[in-house]
Amino acid sequence: MKKLFFPLLIAFFVLSALAHYLHWNTVAQFVISAVTIVFVAGFLGKATEAVAHYAGQRLGGFLNATFGNAAELIIAIFLVKEGLFDMVKASLTGSIIGNLLLVLGASALAGGLKFKEQKFNIHLAGQNASLMLLGVIALFIPAVFVKSEHLSQGDTMTLSVTVAAVLIIAYIGWLVYSMVTHKSLLEDHADTQADHGETAAWSKGQSILFLVIATVMVAFVSEWLVGTLHTFTDQYGMSELFVGAFIVAIVGNAAEHSAAVMLALKNKIGAAVEIAVGSSLQIALFVAPVLIFVSLMFGNPMNILFTTVEIAAIGVAVLIATSISRDGATTWYEGKLLLLVYIVLGVAFFFV
Amino acid sequence: MKKLFFPLLIAFFVLSALAHYLHWNTVAQFVISAVTIVFVAGFLGKATEAVAHYAGQRLGGFLNATFGNAAELIIAIFLVKEGLFDMVKASLTGSIIGNLLLVLGASALAGGLKFKEQKFNIHLAGQNASLMLLGVIALFIPAVFVKSEHLSQGDTMTLSVTVAAVLIIAYIGWLVYSMVTHKSLLEDHADTQADHGETAAWSKGQSILFLVIATVMVAFVSEWLVGTLHTFTDQYGMSELFVGAFIVAIVGNAAEHSAAVMLALKNKIGAAVEIAVGSSLQIALFVAPVLIFVSLMFGNPMNILFTTVEIAAIGVAVLIATSISRDGATTWYEGKLLLLVYIVLGVAFFFV
Amino acid sequence: MKKLFFPLLIAFFVLSALAHYLHWNTVAQFVISAVTIVFVAGFLGKATEAVAHYAGQRLGGFLNATFGNAAELIIAIFLVKEGLFDMVKASLTGSIIGNLLLVLGASALAGGLKFKEQKFNIHLAGQNASLMLLGVIALFIPAVFVKSEHLSQGDTMTLSVTVAAVLIIAYIGWLVYSMVTHKSLLEDHADTQADHGETAAWSKGQSILFLVIATVMVAFVSEWLVGTLHTFTDQYGMSELFVGAFIVAIVGNAAEHSAAVMLALKNKIGAAVEIAVGSSLQIALFVAPVLIFVSLMFGNPMNILFTTVEIAAIGVAVLIATSISRDGATTWYEGKLLLLVYIVLGVAFFFV
Repeated sequence: MKKLFFPLLIAFFVLSALAHYLHWNTVAQFVISAVTIVFVAGFLGKATEAVAHYAGQRLGGFLNATFGNAAELIIAIFLVKEGLFDMVKASLTGSIIGNLLLVLGASALAGGLKFKEQKFNIHLAGQNASLMLLGVIALFIPAVFVKSEHLSQGDTMTLSVTVAAVLIIAYIGWLVYSMVTHKSLLEDHADTQADHGETAAWSKGQSILFLVIATVMVAFVSEWLVGTLHTFTDQYGMSELFVGAFIVAIVGNAAEHSAAVMLALKNKIGAAVEIAVGSSLQIALFVAPVLIFVSLMFGNPMNILFTTVEIAAIGVAVLIATSISRDGATTWYEGKLLLLVYIVLGVAFFFV
Repeated sequence: MKKLFFPLLIAFFVLSALAHYLHWNTVAQFVISAVTIVFVAGFLGKATEAVAHYAGQRLGGFLNATFGNAAELIIAIFLVKEGLFDMVKASLTGSIIGNLLLVLGASALAGGLKFKEQKFNIHLAGQNASLMLLGVIALFIPAVFVKSEHLSQGDTMTLSVTVAAVLIIAYIGWLVYSMVTHKSLLEDHADTQADHGETAAWSKGQSILFLVIATVMVAFVSEWLVGTLHTFTDQYGMSELFVGAFIVAIVGNAAEHSAAVMLALKNKIGAAVEIAVGSSLQIALFVAPVLIFVSLMFGNPMNILFTTVEIAAIGVAVLIATSISRDGATTWYEGKLLLLVYIVLGVAFFFV
Repeated sequence: MKKLFFPLLIAFFVLSALAHYLHWNTVAQFVISAVTIVFVAGFLGKATEAVAHYAGQRLGGFLNATFGNAAELIIAIFLVKEGLFDMVKASLTGSIIGNLLLVLGASALAGGLKFKEQKFNIHLAGQNASLMLLGVIALFIPAVFVKSEHLSQGDTMTLSVTVAAVLIIAYIGWLVYSMVTHKSLLEDHADTQADHGETAAWSKGQSILFLVIATVMVAFVSEWLVGTLHTFTDQYGMSELFVGAFIVAIVGNAAEHSAAVMLALKNKIGAAVEIAVGSSLQIALFVAPVLIFVSLMFGNPMNILFTTVEIAAIGVAVLIATSISRDGATTWYEGKLLLLVYIVLGVAFFFV
C-alpha cells in the first residue's frame, strides 16, 4: 500500500486534471477529484510531518496545525471567491461536526472494541472543552443579537470582523499556551508527532519542496472539486447545506479520519483526540475567521452569521463531545453515541 | 404495612373496577384509580425484582429496567391510541423531569439531612450525563430543524422514525455496555438489586405468574385512569400540558419515588440515582421512541416533535441534574436545588 | 495611597454633591460621581470587613456578602423607582457578566502571568456551577414560557414572584449550607476574610458607625449617578442596554474588580473566585429577586422577563466560566478566554 501511494497520487492527479479540462461528465469529475483530494491531502499531511521533523516540535506542531487543515481552507477560499457563502458555512459546520462526531466517534469505537478503556490527558480535555465553547459562543452571540435586535448590515459586518479578530487572538494565544508556556501540562499533545516512518527519510530541502508541491496540488484539485458541486444541488436536488456539511466535509477531512482511527487502534487515543478536536478547534478559531478577512479582501464581505440549524448542530456536537471526553477516557459505547448523533444530524440536514 | 399490601392492592383494584364500570363521579374515579395505580405499580416492581432474583443479575437488570417503567408505557399506549398526542408528550416530559428533579431531589435532600455527603460511582454519573444529553439532542434537533426549515409532514415523520430508531439502538447498546462489557466499571448499578426481602420467598413459577398478573392489572387501571383525565382539562380548565406533565407523571412514577427516597435514607444514594436517572433515561431512550413505532402500528402516526416549553423543561432538568451529579456525590442542598427547579417548572406549566 | 484614601473619599463626595445640586454639566456630573462611587464602594467594603472582624466569620461572611453588593442594589432600587426597568435588568445582566468574565478573567490572567497554575477548592467550583445554573434557569424558564405560550400579564407577574421567592429560598439555603452545615467542605471560602490590615484598627463601635455612614454615602452618590445616565442614551445615542450592562456595571463593581485582581496576584485565586462568582450569584439569586418585591412595594411591578440577548449573554458567561473553573484551577490562558468573551459581548451590546 505504502509503495503504491506516490504512483496512485500522480495517476489520480493527472486523471482529475484531464476530467476537468476535457469537461468530462460532472459526476465522473466529482468522483475522480474526490478520490484525488484524499491522496493529495494525505501527501500534504506527510510533507507537513516531514518538515515538522526538521523544524523541531514547537514550530513543527504549529506547522502541523496550520497545514493540517489546508485542504479545507483552500476549498473554502474558492467557495468564498465564487460567493457561495452558504456552502462555505455549511462546509465549516460539516467539518466541525464531522471531526467531533465522525472522526472522534469512529476512533473511540474502533479503539474501544480493542481496548476496554482508553485514557488521555485530562487537562487537555478540559481546555479543549473551554475552547470549543468559545467557538460556539462566537457563532451564537452574533446570530442571536442580529436576529433579536435586527442589527443593520453594516453593524453586522463590524460585529463579524470583531468576533473574527477575537477568535484569531484566542487561537494564537492557544498556540502559545499549549506549545510554550504550558506544554508539559498538556503532554499528550506531543504524541501526534510520533511515528513518521518513511517521511523521516526525506532531507530537509526535499521536505520543504514537497510541502510546497502538495499545497499547490491541493489548491488545484480543490478548485476542480468545487466546480462540480453544483451537480448535486442542481441535478439531484440536494440542499447546499447537505452537500457542504456532509459531502464536502467528509472528502475534505478524509486524511484526518484515517489517521485518527489508526492511532486509536494503536491505543494512542490522546493523539486521535488531538487530531479530531484540534482540527475542529482550528476550523472554528482559525479557518472560519480567516475566511471573513479573505472575503473582505475579495471585496465581497461574508458575515459570521450561521443559520439556526448550523449553530444547533455545532452546539450539540460540542456538548456531547465535551461531555464524553471530559473525564479523559473513551470507551466503545461513547464512540457509538457520537456516531449516532452524527447520523441524527445527517438525516436532519438531508431533509432541509 | 407490608402485611396489608396485598389486601389493599386487591381492595383498591376492585374498587376502581366498580368505579369505572358503574360510571361513578369522574373525580372519584380519578382519585380511586390514582391510588390503585400506586399499589399495582408497587406490585409490578416487586414481581419484577422477584423474577430478577431467579434470572440472575444481568437478565434481572434488564427485566427490572423494562418492566420498571411498564406503567408509564402502558398509560402512554392508551393515550396514543386515543390520539391524545399532546398529553402523551406532556406525560413523557413530566416523567423525565419528575424523575430527575422530584425523585432525585427528594432522595438527595432526605439522604443529605441524615448523611453529610453521599457518594456514588463517578463513572456512572458521567455516562448518565452523556446519555441524558443524547436524549435531549434527539428531541431538540428535530424540533429546531422542523421549526427553522419548515420540513414537510412526510419528512418530519421520516426524521422522527430515524431518530426513534437511533434512540433504541443507543438504549440497546447501553444495556450491553452497562450489563455486559463494562459492568464492573459502573458497579453501583448492582445495588439496585439488593434487599429483596419478602419477594425472595416466592418460587420461580410464582414470580413469573405474579409478573404477568401485575402487568395486566397495570394495563387495566391505566386505561381507567386515562379515561378520567379529561375531567381536569374540561371541568377545572387545566391545560393538557399540566395534567400530563405533573398529575399523570407523579401518579405513574409513585413507585420509583418512594423506593428511591427509602434507598437514600439507607445511604444507598447510588441505587437511588440509578432509579431516578435510569428511569428518565429509559423514558427518553426507550419509551418515547417505542411510542412512535406503536403509533405507526395504530395507523395514526405521532411525530417526535415536542413543544418549545417541553424541550426547555427537559433541557433544564438534564443540565441541573448532571451539573449536580457529575462529581459523584450529593448533599442536602443539591437536593433542595433540584426541588426548587421542579417548583419553578411546575408553576410555569400551570400557567400555560 | 492608603493615607490618601479618606481625604480623597471626602473630597470627591463633596465635589459630586456640588456637581449635582449646582446642576453642573451632566457629563462632568457623571464623571465625578462615577469616580466617587469607586471610593464610597471601597469605603463600604472596608467597613463591612471591619464589622465582619468583630462579628465572627459566620455572621461576618453573611454581612460581607449582603453589603458587598449594596452599591448595585441601591443603584438598582433608584432605577426601579424611576421605572427604568430595562436599564435595571441591563445593569443586573452587566453585573453578572462583568463579574464572571471581566473580574474573573482579569484575576486569572493577572495571577496566571505570575503563577503557572492557581488552584482553589474544587467542591466550591462545582457548587458554584450548579448555583449559577439555577440563576440562568430562573431567568430562562419564565422567558421561554411567556414567549412561547403567550402568558397574560397577570400570570407573568405571578410566575415572576414565584421564581423570585424560589431564588431567595435558594440563596438563604446556600448561606446555611456554605456557612453552617458544609463550611469545612468549601474551605477556600474563609480566605476572603483574610488581610484586614488597617481596618482591624477600628473599634467595634467605629466599625458599625462607618458601615452606616458608608451605606448612606453610597445611596446618595448612586442617586446622583443614576440621574446623569440619560445623557448617554439621549446625547450620545447609546442604548439603555449598553449603558446599563457595561457603564453602570463596571462603575458599580469597581471595588470587587480591584480587590479580586490584588488577591490573584497574591496567589489567593480562591478568594478572587469567591468575590467574582459569589458576587454574580448574589446578583442573580438575591439582588434580582429582591428588586421584584421592591417594585411591588413601589406599586409599579417589574416582572422577571429578561430579553433574549440578556439571557443569551448571561447563559454564555455562565457556561464559559463554569467550564473554565470546574477543574478547580486557573491559568493565564483561561483568564484571556474570559476577557475575549467579554469583549465579544461588549461589542454585540454596543450595536444593539
